[in-house]
Amino acid sequence: MLLQAASPMAIPVVVLDPELTAPAKQASQPQVFPAFASSAAPLRHVDGAFTDAAKIRELAQQVDVLTVEIEHVNVAALKEVADECATTGGRSGKGIKVYPSPSIIGIIQDKYLQKVHLAERDVPVAPFLPITADSSAVSSDDPLASLVPSVLEAGEKFGYPLMLKSRHLAYDGKGNFVLRSSSPSDVRAALEALVPASSLSSPSARPLTDRLYAEKFAPFVKEVAVMVARGASGETRAYPAVETIHRDSVCHIVYAPLRPPVDPKNGVGREQRGENAVVGKSVNERAQEDAQKAIDALGEGAVGVFGVEMFLMADGSLLLNEIAPRPHNSGHYTIEACNVSQYVSHLYAILSLPLPPITFTPPAAAMLNLLGYSDSAKDDFLRPDGVVAKAVELGAAIHLYGKAGCRKGRKMGHITVLGTSDADVRTKIAQLAAVLPGSYAEPDRDADIFETSPHKPFSSNHPLVSIVMGSDSDLPVMKPAAQILTKFGVEFELSIVSAHRTAMRMEEFAHKAEERGVRVIIAGAGGAAHLPGMVASATSLPVVGVPVKASVLDGVDSLYSIVQMPRGIPCATVGINNSTNAALLAVRILSTYQPRLRKALEDYAHGLEDEVLAKVGKIEEIGWDAYEYKK
Amino acid sequence: MLLQAASPMAIPVVVLDPELTAPAKQASQPQVFPAFASSAAPLRHVDGAFTDAAKIRELAQQVDVLTVEIEHVNVAALKEVADECATTGGRSGKGIKVYPSPSIIGIIQDKYLQKVHLAERDVPVAPFLPITADSSAVSSDDPLASLVPSVLEAGEKFGYPLMLKSRHLAYDGKGNFVLRSSSPSDVRAALEALVPASSLSSPSARPLTDRLYAEKFAPFVKEVAVMVARGASGETRAYPAVETIHRDSVCHIVYAPLRPPVDPKNGVGREQRGENAVVGKSVNERAQEDAQKAIDALGEGAVGVFGVEMFLMADGSLLLNEIAPRPHNSGHYTIEACNVSQYVSHLYAILSLPLPPITFTPPAAAMLNLLGYSDSAKDDFLRPDGVVAKAVELGAAIHLYGKAGCRKGRKMGHITVLGTSDADVRTKIAQLAAVLPGSYAEPDRDADIFETSPHKPFSSNHPLVSIVMGSDSDLPVMKPAAQILTKFGVEFELSIVSAHRTAMRMEEFAHKAEERGVRVIIAGAGGAAHLPGMVASATSLPVVGVPVKASVLDGVDSLYSIVQMPRGIPCATVGINNSTNAALLAVRILSTYQPRLRKALEDYAHGLEDEVLAKVGKIEEIGWDAYEYKK
Repeated sequence: MLLQAASPMAIPVVVLDPELTAPAKQASQPQVFPAFASSAAPLRHVDGAFTDAAKIRELAQQVDVLTVEIEHVNVAALKEVADECATTGGRSGKGIKVYPSPSIIGIIQDKYLQKVHLAERDVPVAPFLPITADSSAVSSDDPLASLVPSVLEAGEKFGYPLMLKSRHLAYDGKGNFVLRSSSPSDVRAALEALVPASSLSSPSARPLTDRLYAEKFAPFVKEVAVMVARGASGETRAYPAVETIHRDSVCHIVYAPLRPPVDPKNGVGREQRGENAVVGKSVNERAQEDAQKAIDALGEGAVGVFGVEMFLMADGSLLLNEIAPRPHNSGHYTIEACNVSQYVSHLYAILSLPLPPITFTPPAAAMLNLLGYSDSAKDDFLRPDGVVAKAVELGAAIHLYGKAGCRKGRKMGHITVLGTSDADVRTKIAQLAAVLPGSYAEPDRDADIFETSPHKPFSSNHPLVSIVMGSDSDLPVMKPAAQILTKFGVEFELSIVSAHRTAMRMEEFAHKAEERGVRVIIAGAGGAAHLPGMVASATSLPVVGVPVKASVLDGVDSLYSIVQMPRGIPCATVGINNSTNAALLAVRILSTYQPRLRKALEDYAHGLEDEVLAKVGKIEEIGWDAYEYKK
Repeated sequence: MLLQAASPMAIPVVVLDPELTAPAKQASQPQVFPAFASSAAPLRHVDGAFTDAAKIRELAQQVDVLTVEIEHVNVAALKEVADECATTGGRSGKGIKVYPSPSIIGIIQDKYLQKVHLAERDVPVAPFLPITADSSAVSSDDPLASLVPSVLEAGEKFGYPLMLKSRHLAYDGKGNFVLRSSSPSDVRAALEALVPASSLSSPSARPLTDRLYAEKFAPFVKEVAVMVARGASGETRAYPAVETIHRDSVCHIVYAPLRPPVDPKNGVGREQRGENAVVGKSVNERAQEDAQKAIDALGEGAVGVFGVEMFLMADGSLLLNEIAPRPHNSGHYTIEACNVSQYVSHLYAILSLPLPPITFTPPAAAMLNLLGYSDSAKDDFLRPDGVVAKAVELGAAIHLYGKAGCRKGRKMGHITVLGTSDADVRTKIAQLAAVLPGSYAEPDRDADIFETSPHKPFSSNHPLVSIVMGSDSDLPVMKPAAQILTKFGVEFELSIVSAHRTAMRMEEFAHKAEERGVRVIIAGAGGAAHLPGMVASATSLPVVGVPVKASVLDGVDSLYSIVQMPRGIPCATVGINNSTNAALLAVRILSTYQPRLRKALEDYAHGLEDEVLAKVGKIEEIGWDAYEYKK
């Protein structure tokens, strides 16, 4: 994908990969680039291991800038070549740059050192401890026993379940173990899983004391990721925070942008009473800030794009989980959804170009990884009833990596969908996943958005419109709004929020609505009718107010109270009791960026015209005196 | 670019091109695709002429489907190979498909036959006549004289200026001549330009009677293009109509979507009184329909994407100019701006896959062709102060074709920008063009959008918001709306439209607003105050009504008249005389898809808060009795 990003800009790239048929080598034929084709040494891809110093050297001789797309490289060899070529090597003979710097790749390779580095620089991470070998507990038949005291000490400190993690070569959930208790059999099972017997006898094995670390278990509510680009002159750009859904510890689905979770009990935003809960920054902003801080903390050589994985906790706080020093599958959605993809940003960064601001173009995007669920999955994906055919039908973007072989868990490709709302992209992902086998067909924790629950006919977990009213007595007046939105296929939620009786709930609802993906709020109230205006003052979303006719004053009280807002805080007011028009106004507002709704509104207008014309016909047919008007 | 679209889907493509360093050959190394790498005959690009039957045959032997990206191929050779390989040739030995069919390419190669074909099938084209050789006028020293009677006959019929066009090998304005009069010297100059002496002596020259045709001059107001994809099973999909701006007869800039022209005299939409002028289909819809009809008219072998160029005439009618049987530079914007690009649609079509519906993702897009303005332009583009550096800064998509040489008029690459409004993308294109030399730096007929004209401080040619009022007496009340929109940097127009005194103008304004790119209408009116509701009934855009306080009844008359709309037609009403809130509501509506405005609204809200808190401070400081309230 990096080469596919370089190709439109005619940037020549040569690749070092052990396989002759590596996907990257398929995407470019550097030997026919005009500037090099006639030279004595045309550019050529290199066949060899990422860890082979001679091959790294061969690659370095052809280029001006060297980068990595996998962190499991031979850092020592890379550093050696970087030092050798710093001022005299490379294609020009004037030296090459290696981005990100080998020392940063070294820190990231050791997940324990990575955590130490981040914690020392005040990046929030889950509490952690090294697992060290206790020499007094060593026994030649049972080397693992030396690790037990350190594990129990961590368990004592952090409680159970306890995360035990390998420091090296850990990715996609490999090298993680959840230790349930301090029982000797549980501890033994964890150590045997993480430190295989074969690795103990190898002469090149790392010392046992450098193998593992322990982390306090983080009971997150969502996994979050942010791609960060950092330029050669130190500026950073963050892509939107996204939600990542894992399957067997491998990233399966990404939803962009991240929406903070909804509390199923109240349906209009999780209650959060902590510091800054109401007026604080959004989760998305905090995730972007933390991610940028983490990459800045890596220091000067942190040039390129970085994938930052985080945990969103129940109290709204974020913990950094780990960093990938390269483009990352949580950022694949950027290829179609952003003005510059993660790959373009990576190229600009390593080429010492300025980094443009990031724009996320569609309202919503999602990515489905095509994980090899079996050795034959590669062929299954391409069947006429397979996921690729479904992606063609949906107009989704198809990425097949051209890997030679398929095996369980291997990333064979991905599909990206763009959409007009969160619910729209989730529905498309559900349609794609539905043709995958077994558990792969369940795309989501929020599976209930895909079927109408009998007791929640008017409620979406991913609403574009929120209908609120001051009291349940307003429901008969507000119901037509729900019916109109249902007719137009606009996802909405409906609830009761009283300005006077649930003031905190109202503030929180209004503050969080935008972040949750809501785009228009319809608020109905009668009498003093403060709700619409109060909601309007606590959000920058358009708020449509419906004056509800109360028992006295014919609704004029409600109308004046809603329409006569002070300068600075607008409330779009419709006629008394006319929630139909409130919903139609919401649809008109959404239609400003959804052509589908524009068409539907035109059809609706023609329907109204036809209705009146039918009455014209009837009155002519049967005569005005026989015509009966039905209210 | 076709190979760049095939690469993410791992579709192997081999290319026939005379140059070893052809751009297409840089973008793919088919010999290392896993499925073919180990076969006895790995896939390989072919070096050779498009017109060389042996080379076409060599290409055909490697593939299942053969397509063209240039129409100046050897149709006879292509047809021969297609026939030979129809059932037994190709990679599989089971035959290949050739899309589009050679016979269709043949029709399109001859622009006169193309016109005949379209006219016979009721596709609107400018009136035309063949230019034939009159044998009685033949003279061996002056063969061109035989064409003069036919030219004069066409001039008699169509008037002057008269378009004279070459039937063959005409593209990018080559082979077109505007004949100004019937004077012998003008006619002679035209014939000498279109029929060079060298072509007369060549033994393989076409007969003179097949060389030219004449067309009635079409004084268009805009040039329009539509990309159409047609699938193997006959379904068509049209991309949005776009405006193309030519320079020296070569496409220089494309704006998507097309916006019908604005009459500079009234500023709110060209008056159009013809049939269906008010309630008819939009220009965009008609252009898409005509383009699809034209491609369908080509018949069964019309499979792939086609560029359809049209003229938009002053009366709103469209004339088809010509068809390109391949991806086209007027469709390059689709790479970034649509869910499936023209290249992906072409691949799906020729691979007999279904064609997904087209979605245009951003509010607006534009493309700037990088035309070689000199032999050194290729290097100039890449200078630190050049257009590519500017594109990096703007976060635009950069396409450099990797062509070996540059010469005047050659297409060396292009840049695509996406934006939140027409004005936004036009501003970006202006910034890009500004670093090009001479006339290339003027991107637009509507150049005045780029500088504030002193007499039009409140008016954009590409507005997102339209402020209208029933009378100039409403202006003092409506001015704050214009000031708020200016403050937020939202492009708007302001004019007078009276529901009662200019009923037709109002209807036309409301009907055309959406097509012109307007997204919110603010309408102010007093007294009977019908304007907001009447406008709302003639558009599906959100309409914000401002009740203006007239001389009696304190504005309550206006308020009721605007807010109490019947069910079905909403009007978002704000407080009496409160046009400030109307504009803020418009900004809130636009912010639903423009994150920039969301941020600006939050800052504005904090500004209001700070203002009140400053007053709190002052009243505490100087005491309530000394505090003076200024109205």
